[in-house]
Amino acid sequence: MASGDEAWIETGRRDLADYGIFKASERTRRGPHGKSGRFIVLDAPEWAVVVPVLERSGRRLILAVRQFRHGSQTASTEFPGGLVEPGEAPAAAAARELLEETGYSAGRIVELGSCNPNPAFMANTFHVFAATDLSLVAEQSLDEHEIVEVEEIPEDELWARVGNPPWSHALMVTAAWYYRRWREEGR
Amino acid sequence: MASGDEAWIETGRRDLADYGIFKASERTRRGPHGKSGRFIVLDAPEWAVVVPVLERSGRRLILAVRQFRHGSQTASTEFPGGLVEPGEAPAAAAARELLEETGYSAGRIVELGSCNPNPAFMANTFHVFAATDLSLVAEQSLDEHEIVEVEEIPEDELWARVGNPPWSHALMVTAAWYYRRWREEGR
Repeated sequence: MASGDEAWIETGRRDLADYGIFKASERTRRGPHGKSGRFIVLDAPEWAVVVPVLERSGRRLILAVRQFRHGSQTASTEFPGGLVEPGEAPAAAAARELLEETGYSAGRIVELGSCNPNPAFMANTFHVFAATDLSLVAEQSLDEHEIVEVEEIPEDELWARVGNPPWSHALMVTAAWYYRRWREEGR
Repeated sequence: MASGDEAWIETGRRDLADYGIFKASERTRRGPHGKSGRFIVLDAPEWAVVVPVLERSGRRLILAVRQFRHGSQTASTEFPGGLVEPGEAPAAAAARELLEETGYSAGRIVELGSCNPNPAFMANTFHVFAATDLSLVAEQSLDEHEIVEVEEIPEDELWARVGNPPWSHALMVTAAWYYRRWREEGR
């Protein structure tokens, strides 16, 4: 009997569009049950997000950035992050995005986990990091269409806030899951 | 000074493609800084996922489904879920997907939270539910290209497993975040 674990064999591919942030293609694949189907796949660069932790008076403050997002048409509060550039390591992308969006440089970047944003149709990986030993070293350095506010949020408020507006970005909820697990492991 | 909270004004829209699972369009928008940009937006149906909870001998078991996913080209373990049909309530979609993918009917469906899968370019909402008081009432009833295995996972193993392969779907990590918060609130 056909199993959900078995790979489908790709028998055809048609490139459909290059949207800059991702490319769309249609793949024809034959499953373990012998039937064929056509599936839309979006190829995108890797994505990296970083949970930046400031220590102040023995208290942990998490840096977040708020910006208008064009899919939801709302302002969204998020951890800093963005696209991994070609040839760039995901940890380096996390450090770069942190610096660009907040002006902070990280003494330490820790990999917390990674997953796929949506394995049903996305082909890329989403990487989550924590950044500690932060120093404010620069002004924000934003892309042309970025208008980003920086916020400091006490870590103990994060658990209640993430997942509710304006923390309504599923990948930020995912990042908070990895961060919390890391803290609970005592590191 | 322009703020990340201020909405951008849409001045143009061009429909690019209808991929069935979503439609792509390019929006021209003017920001609070006075500059205009073009942004790709994917319009998709709402998505719903349900964390199904079996109680057996005083222990909580979570139902999960495992299937091959065409974006990641891997098998993925997930909570049951899928697209909300036109005119369907998200909770009804959650109950329907649970029944189709596992054969279980839910005596109780609880809304745990919702967010946007990726506000940067997705325009839809992702809804998370818990299902309790489950009864096995039917066989699986799957779509043409679905091959789905059902698993039972002790709830206390969920916290360590979710976020690591084969639990590598960011929206499932997000769902687990809402579910855990709900349990911690004592409900």
